[in-house]
Amino acid sequence: MDAITVIRTKRDGGTLTPEQIDWVIDAYTRGTVADEQMSALAMAILLNGMDRAEIARWTAAMIATGERMEFSRLDRPTVDKHSTGGVGDKITLPLAPLVAACGAAVPQLSGRGLGHTGGTLDKLESIPGWRADLDNAEMLDILDRIGAVICAAGPGLAPADRKLYALRDVTGTVESIPLIAASIMSKKIAEGTDSLVLDVKVGSGAFMKNLDDARELAATMVGLGTDHGVRTVALLTDMSVPLGLTAGNALEVRESVEVLAGGGPADVVELTVALAREMLAAAGLPDADPERALADGSAMDVWRRMIAAQGGDPDAPLPTARETHTVTAPTTGTLVGLDAYAVGLAAWRLGAGRARKEDAVQAGAGVQWHARPGDRVTAGAPLLTLHTDAPERFAGALEALEGGAVTIGDPVEGDPGTVGPLILGRVD
Amino acid sequence: MDAITVIRTKRDGGTLTPEQIDWVIDAYTRGTVADEQMSALAMAILLNGMDRAEIARWTAAMIATGERMEFSRLDRPTVDKHSTGGVGDKITLPLAPLVAACGAAVPQLSGRGLGHTGGTLDKLESIPGWRADLDNAEMLDILDRIGAVICAAGPGLAPADRKLYALRDVTGTVESIPLIAASIMSKKIAEGTDSLVLDVKVGSGAFMKNLDDARELAATMVGLGTDHGVRTVALLTDMSVPLGLTAGNALEVRESVEVLAGGGPADVVELTVALAREMLAAAGLPDADPERALADGSAMDVWRRMIAAQGGDPDAPLPTARETHTVTAPTTGTLVGLDAYAVGLAAWRLGAGRARKEDAVQAGAGVQWHARPGDRVTAGAPLLTLHTDAPERFAGALEALEGGAVTIGDPVEGDPGTVGPLILGRVD
Repeated sequence: MDAITVIRTKRDGGTLTPEQIDWVIDAYTRGTVADEQMSALAMAILLNGMDRAEIARWTAAMIATGERMEFSRLDRPTVDKHSTGGVGDKITLPLAPLVAACGAAVPQLSGRGLGHTGGTLDKLESIPGWRADLDNAEMLDILDRIGAVICAAGPGLAPADRKLYALRDVTGTVESIPLIAASIMSKKIAEGTDSLVLDVKVGSGAFMKNLDDARELAATMVGLGTDHGVRTVALLTDMSVPLGLTAGNALEVRESVEVLAGGGPADVVELTVALAREMLAAAGLPDADPERALADGSAMDVWRRMIAAQGGDPDAPLPTARETHTVTAPTTGTLVGLDAYAVGLAAWRLGAGRARKEDAVQAGAGVQWHARPGDRVTAGAPLLTLHTDAPERFAGALEALEGGAVTIGDPVEGDPGTVGPLILGRVD
Repeated sequence: MDAITVIRTKRDGGTLTPEQIDWVIDAYTRGTVADEQMSALAMAILLNGMDRAEIARWTAAMIATGERMEFSRLDRPTVDKHSTGGVGDKITLPLAPLVAACGAAVPQLSGRGLGHTGGTLDKLESIPGWRADLDNAEMLDILDRIGAVICAAGPGLAPADRKLYALRDVTGTVESIPLIAASIMSKKIAEGTDSLVLDVKVGSGAFMKNLDDARELAATMVGLGTDHGVRTVALLTDMSVPLGLTAGNALEVRESVEVLAGGGPADVVELTVALAREMLAAAGLPDADPERALADGSAMDVWRRMIAAQGGDPDAPLPTARETHTVTAPTTGTLVGLDAYAVGLAAWRLGAGRARKEDAVQAGAGVQWHARPGDRVTAGAPLLTLHTDAPERFAGALEALEGGAVTIGDPVEGDPGTVGPLILGRVD
């Protein structure tokens, strides 16, 4: 078995054998296969694809490089949610305590942001005292006592994926549906959840720019989960417009708490409840009522206990940025479009995200928008507020928002603009 | 300018800009672009191709990373030859002194063998005392005094190619016509020859397995040479059968000396003379008579002086292997096929070649064959002799020669078998 033969097989359009896949993943993790060999193989996979059996084996081989978690001692069913990443996507924050309040256990291993999409852990770290790193015993204890935990995946979970993801990030080999599916599902299957709901984002602010690609990714991941005994379902949801009214770490925590308090932007509430229903159905609790758990404060109770269990103070004021800059509407009319990618890029440039893994993020930085597509706007009224501790960053953020990020249409009273549905499809 | 954007451009089927190519080659040579990024780019180029303008710029960028040699002080025209590599291909050895004997200067920068094809420097190093490494002043002096020099390319010549070739070798990205053409031509153009004759091999023992690929490679290289002001012509020649009657270092030197003495196998003489005529025509000496220079001993005189100038003793006995093993013909008939790849693999396994750059080769190891396709063979008579210092290597060599390496056909007296022409085409 040697790396060059494996690379040539995929390069020439062939199918990798199960033995080749097991060997190359294990050897890469151990360092016998070099980075430059794996990146050539990743490019060949990106361009020539993998079939369903290859993707399944690739995923299993990545799981086999690490430990598998075990939640069978819990007295309730486990269910997890994963989003492929978008702008303003704070849904995990209200969702995990909401689903726990309805009777399921939610072991939510999350990541940090990279590029224009935010990361759940970065958002929670804006809460004073809150820490993301737990060992397995702490995680299990919080899950057992409170029903929900959001924390970083430990280094023992699918270490092959950790190494391969970092490599793909610097070699232009991220955008491969088989590799994205295997990366996400290897961690989720190793995590040991009974069931899983995927939120596959589609649109300018997402990895998947069109519905066909998103559907293929969703079907691939649902197939992988099912093959490994994890009840898996996917929603396809719109990411051409950012979610809610904020993108940024503390800004999004504030919005999440509003949702848990029974308010918050309508789209965030809609998606949170839709995903909660899917999770509860997958967990065998189809009669649970997430809308009631938001209304009666039980979801908020879980949130407060969950934050406190990880050292956070749920009552502490959230950090705010030192400087703000307001962008006003240039004309009166209906807001027709607000481009998710442009807003994400602006938030990132303001300091909400990082360019490299080792960079720090600003807790208070980000973008707020005061209207959503379909809303009427008035010339001269505030449309966007930019937040940052570093005012020299405003110029780059404003540049990201030029040229089509905001579209204001015909000012006819009551024109709903071109707002489409939030939930575009479902794959199970 | 960043590596990921360059990789994505080629990955997505785009055309690299001149600025992208200049930047990525220079940054890779300086170490700013990492090996894993360049290997992903090389795989994307292998699978998505480069157009003529991209290949030209890629070649120019590799030349620009190093020095260019300068032969204008010589009083005769310079002409070089390059073979894409085959089994038993010792042609450079008699050819360089022959062309020098006819009035041109031949600055022949050569390489060592890797895999089943032999290397000119490995062959000459079997001559006691001969050394491959010369500095530029020594090389120019020998060229001036004797008219021919065969030596290693210095580290200052196209260092980008040196680094990239080593990377491609371990990442399954060798078999790309644009990258092969750019690699060969960057060194030849930097070498500063006035004209160049390419011997592009086709068949089982060559990189190019079919005539269409070989013709494309030849046309690409002729175009590159012409664009850089080097008069370039290519012959396409058969490498389904090994050249001559030997493959191995000292074995091939002996055969080359036989050709210089006016004898030697007919195919080696035919190809040597054909390439000599092309080189002399390209050098503006169309009336020179290479057959006469072989017959009257003047080519042999240049050979002896050239070897001596690099420390070699042309009269010293050549090394022989300690052990031999004879393979006899299984039946009587006409030898129809002798597979070049199988013979090359056997010679390599006997110790004539190396698996890694840092390995040593055996001077005496190799394969001799006592008949060529078209010849009659008799059951029980010697067909092949295997040479090695390490008798444990016979088994691997014999295994390489099993299963179709030797084909003996209908034993009708005078049947010429299926021997095709040696020279298959010409590109200028």
